[in-house]
Amino acid sequence: MVEKIRAVYELYGFEPVETPAMEYTDALGKFLPDQDRPNEGVFSFQDDDEQWISLRYDLTAPLARYVAENFDTLPKPYRSYRAGYVFRNEKPGPGRFRQFMQFDADTVGSGSPAADAEMCMMAAEAMERLGIPRGSYVVKVNNRKVLDGVMESIGLAGDHNAGRRLIVLRAIDKLDKFPVAEVRKLLGPGRWDGGEEGKGDFTTGAGLNPAQIDKVMLYITSMDDLTLGDVTELSEESRQKLDDPEKGELIHLEGGRILYRSNLSAVKSLHTNFGAFSALSQQGVDELQDIINVCMPSGFGYDRVRIDPSVVRGLEYYTGAVFEVELLLDTKDEKGRPVRFGSVGGGGRYDGLVSRFRGEPVPATGFSIGVSRLQAALTLLGKLDTRPEFGPVVVTVFDRDRVADYQKMVASLRTAGIRAELYLGNPKNMGNQLKYADRRNSPCVIIQGSDEKARGEVQVKDLIEGAKAAAAIASNQEWRESRPAQFSCSEADLVSKVREVLARHDVKWG
Amino acid sequence: MVEKIRAVYELYGFEPVETPAMEYTDALGKFLPDQDRPNEGVFSFQDDDEQWISLRYDLTAPLARYVAENFDTLPKPYRSYRAGYVFRNEKPGPGRFRQFMQFDADTVGSGSPAADAEMCMMAAEAMERLGIPRGSYVVKVNNRKVLDGVMESIGLAGDHNAGRRLIVLRAIDKLDKFPVAEVRKLLGPGRWDGGEEGKGDFTTGAGLNPAQIDKVMLYITSMDDLTLGDVTELSEESRQKLDDPEKGELIHLEGGRILYRSNLSAVKSLHTNFGAFSALSQQGVDELQDIINVCMPSGFGYDRVRIDPSVVRGLEYYTGAVFEVELLLDTKDEKGRPVRFGSVGGGGRYDGLVSRFRGEPVPATGFSIGVSRLQAALTLLGKLDTRPEFGPVVVTVFDRDRVADYQKMVASLRTAGIRAELYLGNPKNMGNQLKYADRRNSPCVIIQGSDEKARGEVQVKDLIEGAKAAAAIASNQEWRESRPAQFSCSEADLVSKVREVLARHDVKWG
Repeated sequence: MVEKIRAVYELYGFEPVETPAMEYTDALGKFLPDQDRPNEGVFSFQDDDEQWISLRYDLTAPLARYVAENFDTLPKPYRSYRAGYVFRNEKPGPGRFRQFMQFDADTVGSGSPAADAEMCMMAAEAMERLGIPRGSYVVKVNNRKVLDGVMESIGLAGDHNAGRRLIVLRAIDKLDKFPVAEVRKLLGPGRWDGGEEGKGDFTTGAGLNPAQIDKVMLYITSMDDLTLGDVTELSEESRQKLDDPEKGELIHLEGGRILYRSNLSAVKSLHTNFGAFSALSQQGVDELQDIINVCMPSGFGYDRVRIDPSVVRGLEYYTGAVFEVELLLDTKDEKGRPVRFGSVGGGGRYDGLVSRFRGEPVPATGFSIGVSRLQAALTLLGKLDTRPEFGPVVVTVFDRDRVADYQKMVASLRTAGIRAELYLGNPKNMGNQLKYADRRNSPCVIIQGSDEKARGEVQVKDLIEGAKAAAAIASNQEWRESRPAQFSCSEADLVSKVREVLARHDVKWG
Repeated sequence: MVEKIRAVYELYGFEPVETPAMEYTDALGKFLPDQDRPNEGVFSFQDDDEQWISLRYDLTAPLARYVAENFDTLPKPYRSYRAGYVFRNEKPGPGRFRQFMQFDADTVGSGSPAADAEMCMMAAEAMERLGIPRGSYVVKVNNRKVLDGVMESIGLAGDHNAGRRLIVLRAIDKLDKFPVAEVRKLLGPGRWDGGEEGKGDFTTGAGLNPAQIDKVMLYITSMDDLTLGDVTELSEESRQKLDDPEKGELIHLEGGRILYRSNLSAVKSLHTNFGAFSALSQQGVDELQDIINVCMPSGFGYDRVRIDPSVVRGLEYYTGAVFEVELLLDTKDEKGRPVRFGSVGGGGRYDGLVSRFRGEPVPATGFSIGVSRLQAALTLLGKLDTRPEFGPVVVTVFDRDRVADYQKMVASLRTAGIRAELYLGNPKNMGNQLKYADRRNSPCVIIQGSDEKARGEVQVKDLIEGAKAAAAIASNQEWRESRPAQFSCSEADLVSKVREVLARHDVKWG
């Protein structure tokens, strides 16, 4: 899985670079969502010099430190990728781990929306390389600047409102977990976990009034209601044209009204409704337009990369474009309950992170795939090959004084590139050795008792064939008499006979 | 590099399994060498429930926890391997890192010396797979039980002497760093870092008297002086026989005296000189004999796997066989100083680690390759391919309004499996774009100005050819007129022409 993602990142011209699992706490900064106490969410400790060190909570902050430190020797723009474990000091639970793997790609030193577009295209391509068909995933794009413009327009501009703006962001980020009414509480007076006042924990709200909340909600839900036209009748041809996934999708046909979503309609609507709020939001809309203009001609249309104003990302460090890749498939878990995977990765532009160290503007953008999460999804979807691979050939120990002889057989198989091992458990019982080989899913076992040794022969027992034969045999006696799938060969022929068995069952070797 | 080691471990029948980077501190135990204060050497912190958690300092202790926890569902003996970072809370310095990678293989549930022998053979095979020729590395084997017998014989038996035995072990483990006289101090009254009393830090010694120290030193240096016979003249034939690496090596010929070392002579000498100390040391010698008996017939003679009583390993948890793989090459560093690599991995039998969790005996043995250290060695030795790989094809931006067109070219190259990227820096200066492509080691760049666009053409600039041509051209004018290694082609031919350039320079793609 990691190999497939790596192949895509390489194809896009990115270079591998790893950073350490820990950083000085100051260098990481405090950008985790939902963590307002210092060090909350992060594992930290002091070294012998009493300096605080933290385990990385993502791969972006450490990359920013690395690039800032090696700025002069790196080519710029600097494109790099890395896979690694990150750590969160949270209570573990279903889908919540203290340690999980991310696979990131970043471009540092380019402010061009083409760099953001590339992140979106690369994420889409990675999904398809992993076997997720087009239409079963989507990369959603938005731009924080537009939302910032909306917030300005409702009086949340300025440094003194930074805290409230963050609360708004995180409230919106909860849209995939909570119903709209609950998100409205987070935008307004705050929300009680338990459902009513005084019950459970209280989350402080942004303190917006209903009119302000309406404006925010109008923005983030604007893609749900883009009306291009009211048409009573639609020819099959125009319908197909509208339904062209390059261009967008026809989402609703009701009472003669066509609701139609596309990236172009999204930009148009954002421009009309929200672009005028401020220079900043205008700039955000323009950048979205630029991203779409790069993606579309390269074959990344609405079906793969899509503007969606509800995407904000909870991390504080994003400054412009933000992305999220979502799986659209749903499936059932082992207990038959429906599972919707949702987001398996995301990213965005973080123009402030490298600058923090350097005192000069250094634009940067990146994308992170949640490998652990995606792996769980792919496993449930049956997209990961989970068939157990064949184990090694097991050379059994019949006569414990002749371990060296048996080991020699193992060595000759290995020299021929065949996975092989000597049975290393207690050899007193041949039945246990065969059971072990079954557990290991071995294609065959090798047995040499004293009679065979005297004749210069070995027994090869084909376990795959044997399992099939066993199913067809009625009694123990019949089994003993026929000894299915077991044959003798000379010691000299061991390797070639084992090769034949492996070839017969299509076991890879060498 | 990791891939090559993995291939060997797979061939030997081991299965991949990863464990987390952190464990509850209690589960890890305190087995680090030179760390006598609790938690010294280990990064530890408390989680939200105030439970102590530590970052793993090796991969063995976490594996023991994992196997103990999943004991009933695992096949036994259980063979597994894993590569991962481990962490030490030490002052970083040359060759000392806070984070480094190890690649471990372990067999849990087998007490057979054949399991230990397999670890030694696998380590040897991994070295050769990495390109280290036979004779340039050696896997040294010893058995703690023999040394324990020696210590019993000088009165260090019993639980109340456990601390002193550990000091002896760690003193011996310093033989590769300190001269013998300094190790004798550590075995005796203790040692001052600064060279004389009162100077520098003091390391407590084992408190042995000179006679006791002699006995320990006799044991650990016994391989240096194994005399098989005093011969005045030696026929070429017998000399060759003695020199057979399967059997051993002729180390010294002086005054007609032949000093000869081999595994068989080592076992014989250990048996005679130290085996009689106790049942334990006798058992240790027998186990060494068994290991050699398994290795030799499989082609792992004295030149690859060698008995060496000076190997003890500093970790407290080993209970029997111990191994160390050492590079015998020396080389010069960048400043021309000689560098001896020494140990790049080690391991041994740790029969007590899994039992700790389960209250029943669970024998186990394992081997760990120090990947970071080995990588440094291989790099210095020129065994790692450090030639910079070719970078991606860079499509330059001539006309910043046509980014989408350029991106489309990039997309068509990528679709053909060719690493490619759009120049994402400030496009105002073509010179900077070419410099960037040079930095990336790009095989070629693509340029399309407005003239070319009008003709439906693109320029392909072969940077590899260009660099060669540039060396042969005298003046700037000549350069401008000849424009070496640059040609036009139609937009439709872009992919095939780039393929030709890549093929010409043997650049891998697809």
